[in-house]
Amino acid sequence: MAMVCLSDFEAYAKKYLPKIAWDFFAAGADDCSTRDENILAYKRIRFRPRILRDVSMIDIRTKLLGTDISFPVGIAPTGFHQLAWPDGEKSTARAAKAMNTCYVASTYSTCSLEEISAAAPGGLQWFQLYIHRNREVSQHLVQRAEALGFQGLVLTADLPYTGKRRDDIRNGFRLPPHMKLKNLEGHFEVCKMNPLDPSVTWNDIYWLRSLTTLPLIIKGILTKEDAELAVRQGVQGIIVSNHGGRQLDGAPATIDALAEVVEAVRGRVEVYLDGGIRKGSDVLKALALGAKCVFIGRPALWGLAYKGEEGLQDVLKILQDEFRLSMALAG
Amino acid sequence: MAMVCLSDFEAYAKKYLPKIAWDFFAAGADDCSTRDENILAYKRIRFRPRILRDVSMIDIRTKLLGTDISFPVGIAPTGFHQLAWPDGEKSTARAAKAMNTCYVASTYSTCSLEEISAAAPGGLQWFQLYIHRNREVSQHLVQRAEALGFQGLVLTADLPYTGKRRDDIRNGFRLPPHMKLKNLEGHFEVCKMNPLDPSVTWNDIYWLRSLTTLPLIIKGILTKEDAELAVRQGVQGIIVSNHGGRQLDGAPATIDALAEVVEAVRGRVEVYLDGGIRKGSDVLKALALGAKCVFIGRPALWGLAYKGEEGLQDVLKILQDEFRLSMALAG
Amino acid sequence: MAMVCLSDFEAYAKKYLPKIAWDFFAAGADDCSTRDENILAYKRIRFRPRILRDVSMIDIRTKLLGTDISFPVGIAPTGFHQLAWPDGEKSTARAAKAMNTCYVASTYSTCSLEEISAAAPGGLQWFQLYIHRNREVSQHLVQRAEALGFQGLVLTADLPYTGKRRDDIRNGFRLPPHMKLKNLEGHFEVCKMNPLDPSVTWNDIYWLRSLTTLPLIIKGILTKEDAELAVRQGVQGIIVSNHGGRQLDGAPATIDALAEVVEAVRGRVEVYLDGGIRKGSDVLKALALGAKCVFIGRPALWGLAYKGEEGLQDVLKILQDEFRLSMALAG
Amino acid sequence: MAMVCLSDFEAYAKKYLPKIAWDFFAAGADDCSTRDENILAYKRIRFRPRILRDVSMIDIRTKLLGTDISFPVGIAPTGFHQLAWPDGEKSTARAAKAMNTCYVASTYSTCSLEEISAAAPGGLQWFQLYIHRNREVSQHLVQRAEALGFQGLVLTADLPYTGKRRDDIRNGFRLPPHMKLKNLEGHFEVCKMNPLDPSVTWNDIYWLRSLTTLPLIIKGILTKEDAELAVRQGVQGIIVSNHGGRQLDGAPATIDALAEVVEAVRGRVEVYLDGGIRKGSDVLKALALGAKCVFIGRPALWGLAYKGEEGLQDVLKILQDEFRLSMALAG
Repeated sequence: MAMVCLSDFEAYAKKYLPKIAWDFFAAGADDCSTRDENILAYKRIRFRPRILRDVSMIDIRTKLLGTDISFPVGIAPTGFHQLAWPDGEKSTARAAKAMNTCYVASTYSTCSLEEISAAAPGGLQWFQLYIHRNREVSQHLVQRAEALGFQGLVLTADLPYTGKRRDDIRNGFRLPPHMKLKNLEGHFEVCKMNPLDPSVTWNDIYWLRSLTTLPLIIKGILTKEDAELAVRQGVQGIIVSNHGGRQLDGAPATIDALAEVVEAVRGRVEVYLDGGIRKGSDVLKALALGAKCVFIGRPALWGLAYKGEEGLQDVLKILQDEFRLSMALAG
Repeated sequence: MAMVCLSDFEAYAKKYLPKIAWDFFAAGADDCSTRDENILAYKRIRFRPRILRDVSMIDIRTKLLGTDISFPVGIAPTGFHQLAWPDGEKSTARAAKAMNTCYVASTYSTCSLEEISAAAPGGLQWFQLYIHRNREVSQHLVQRAEALGFQGLVLTADLPYTGKRRDDIRNGFRLPPHMKLKNLEGHFEVCKMNPLDPSVTWNDIYWLRSLTTLPLIIKGILTKEDAELAVRQGVQGIIVSNHGGRQLDGAPATIDALAEVVEAVRGRVEVYLDGGIRKGSDVLKALALGAKCVFIGRPALWGLAYKGEEGLQDVLKILQDEFRLSMALAG
Repeated sequence: MAMVCLSDFEAYAKKYLPKIAWDFFAAGADDCSTRDENILAYKRIRFRPRILRDVSMIDIRTKLLGTDISFPVGIAPTGFHQLAWPDGEKSTARAAKAMNTCYVASTYSTCSLEEISAAAPGGLQWFQLYIHRNREVSQHLVQRAEALGFQGLVLTADLPYTGKRRDDIRNGFRLPPHMKLKNLEGHFEVCKMNPLDPSVTWNDIYWLRSLTTLPLIIKGILTKEDAELAVRQGVQGIIVSNHGGRQLDGAPATIDALAEVVEAVRGRVEVYLDGGIRKGSDVLKALALGAKCVFIGRPALWGLAYKGEEGLQDVLKILQDEFRLSMALAG
Repeated sequence: MAMVCLSDFEAYAKKYLPKIAWDFFAAGADDCSTRDENILAYKRIRFRPRILRDVSMIDIRTKLLGTDISFPVGIAPTGFHQLAWPDGEKSTARAAKAMNTCYVASTYSTCSLEEISAAAPGGLQWFQLYIHRNREVSQHLVQRAEALGFQGLVLTADLPYTGKRRDDIRNGFRLPPHMKLKNLEGHFEVCKMNPLDPSVTWNDIYWLRSLTTLPLIIKGILTKEDAELAVRQGVQGIIVSNHGGRQLDGAPATIDALAEVVEAVRGRVEVYLDGGIRKGSDVLKALALGAKCVFIGRPALWGLAYKGEEGLQDVLKILQDEFRLSMALAG
């Protein structure tokens, strides 16, 4: 089976992952209309390609908050990588480092922050945080991440409660007993019942910033109003995201929401996007609409499911080649 | 079979109900395009979700004409509940009371108003009325309903004649001999041939209001012009409805008609909606567009078909949970 | 098999007609996109139904150029009715008379004008004309029609050449040897090779009007510019038509073209429409957009194929009932 | 099998060509959305047909840069015709000459320019050029073409790199050993690795014009900005093209891009189009939107695959007949 494009990895993962794991990664909320819109929306956007420009040298490098990465595609935070590959997030970290891009490690990793950090020393890593009811849990996580050398803190702000994913309910999805949410071990018992705090507001950003000197990126913004609030709260970055369509079904596609966020931000902070990236030309569309970088979620998991670290590198290389080619062809 | 969402109840009902009963409940007029549009129209509406709001306390209670209900979803008037469950409307009444919401009992019930009232003493019940050619029939029904403690009168205004539902004609649909339109017993013989009066106009609202002190709600409004007339006639509420797409095929989806009605009414009376509600986020969309409450028709029947009173409660609980979650996720 | 709606007759005809005949009647030009658009366009049009109007008396009668018909649906000119039913156009004429509506007999009938006229004495009949290269043929036809009591002359203006209907070419369609274009017998040999005159222009309308005192109706107008020209030439009526999508593929649906024609005409002549009428509510949509009457083509042939005169009456009765009901339900 | 329309030739070619050849000809970049849009976009365009115009004489001849052709459809440059028919481009040249239209021979022909020229002496032929890294290769080709009597030079400007065609990668597509890129023999070894020069810019147009007195046509323009630049550089013609959707997936359909190019050019140079032409009415739509002529790519290959020279003539004749009929029917 030739792995030519990201859909090939998707087909592989669907075929070889246990159904319960595939369903979990693939799940969208309710009717999955937002999940599917994330992809369909790209197809409605057309380029205005220019010709006869010197495209012999294409520089696809960029910077995330000042740090160089090899091309504007990072790894979005997703949980439970051991469901896709035995080494889990350690493989993810290694692949991201090998490709010289950014990996956003999830609170809900099946490897600990220490393991992730040690797997790819010197790699650009950000840490994704949920705010727990027990604030000490979150505080402790932030401080661990900072001490380990993570270089950014991504606050996921669209999950006061977990979205309704029908297949997960039908499957009775839960992490297999031999996997653990290692970052929460010990703490987890304390706050098992709805561990996340749905009362978090913009005021908690002050508290969060008081814990750390790491730059703060807010993930889950879809409106200009929230973009303005984020800038005013002094964040360093915004990820336009609908959580892969896993939270509120009926939310807009991220590529459709991007323009109003970019316009509201007016360059004051960096704007990123995740959701629906399947081709290099999708990356180019997002950048053309103002994103500084995009992040991939499910495609990274498909890469892991295919061949772990190596498979994820394959996915990133394909996107890199496609992105470079799209830039050349669009002039 | 896990009952996770309303579609699961639909699949169950389609599988286990007699075809003639399923067809009757499912029927739309002509090509069923309005019936289907009722659902499709929701999918075209996108939220603008807000984040980082304190959603730890979500109050989903509301009031219908001053009376508390647990959440803004009531039971729309539909006929012939014994086709779905032996206890018929008595089960419906019990489920509505158990869930603390409003049940609009149909003139075409297979239980009498007395049975319905007795099944759920103290529950919030409205009575749905058609105006018969023989006005005494209608007058008698209104007075019985008022005497029994029904708290609202819903006049269905979009059925001067019955819509053309092809499957019912093919099936030769009629009520099985052991079921009766109990509210019309005795009267029914008198006016068997087209018992409803197609000459009813706004002037008859005066007559109707003279019969009772109950608040009057008009069901079947789809235009601002009729909304304005309803307000001027002194009604207390409007249900934006196309009769589930069973009357005029080509009528707009109710969620599409809602905005112009709400705008015309300018808060002078309460505006409700029925048609196409299948998820909690549909309820939220209707409320965001100005409805005070929505009513479910077919999903209630699917719940009855599944497990009677208990099944309908399941349906309502699912909608309640989904609605609460949607509110939290939309901020 | 219950015949509940026009689609039932379509299914019957498709099943029981010889393939070559079905294909001929069903044919559209090229990709059949205009043929299909004729139908799809109705589905995009929504009513604004009004309620609580006295619809106990619905008068669906109308007049065509001053002559009463029972409801605003006539029989469009189509050829070769013997392909559908042995008695051919004689049955069509009888059904139209029985239903008290207008039948537009085609030049390409398989019965002669004399037979058609004799089959339904006193019925309202118009005669459809093509202008032949040999003008005497056309002149003779017009004078025969007038002498026989036909009350209108319909000039088909969108067939300078025959559209490209792929299935007819594949099938090698031609009239079976035992059927004849009886109106053209004798003449036909003369002008076998492209008998119609593609050089006809608006100036020929003068000539045509000089031949007869019959009112003249132009069929095939789709633009305001041609509507204006038709009015100036002194025609009495316009049929908005794209020849059932059989001529220029890519022409607009007739219901989409109707509004601009009606607006241009400003009531100076009557405007009719054919193409895509399948339900009573389609008739109502066309009338709401300004048509005085519509004509059915293929559905009439399906009716003939079902049971000849009786089948066509069934089709007309269904449309009549559906139209009356739609009027009542739309208020 | 009756060959009635171009789709019949497509079906034939798909059935009888080796899969690897069919896939190569059919290929679009990435998801093939631009390839498919080229066709779908025509279906969204509607005519405004006029009637009662004298269409007895239809003149479909036109001129390309002053040279007469029999109708406004030429043969677009496509490579590797021997994959479709043993005689390859020689057959193409003969068919074009027989139909008195223009053939644009590709640099990537499997016959040499000398063979192509000799196959159809006196036929209108243009030569399509890529600019190679080794400019001498290109210079030599241009001078050979001019010496052989080619009458125009078409510079393909949208292929700095080859688009990503998934099936070709999966198939490991390469030219069979017995076929050669005869125009590049000798040179090809020199520049095997990415032989084309991605650094070409508008400035190179000066160089190209210095090599030859042939009129220059730029192929691959999709925007008004590039159209303006092309006119300023003194080209004689523009082909609005997205390379059949084989280069940048996400580029607009050519028929959608045509209007802005025509408007920008304001008649200063001739504007042509390729991509998606499948019917005579597509040709008419392109001309109505301002194109002087269109070119067919894949349909020409289907014709070759069917019966070589004769098959391609069949394709051209069908288009010619359909185009003439569309003109008549559109008035």
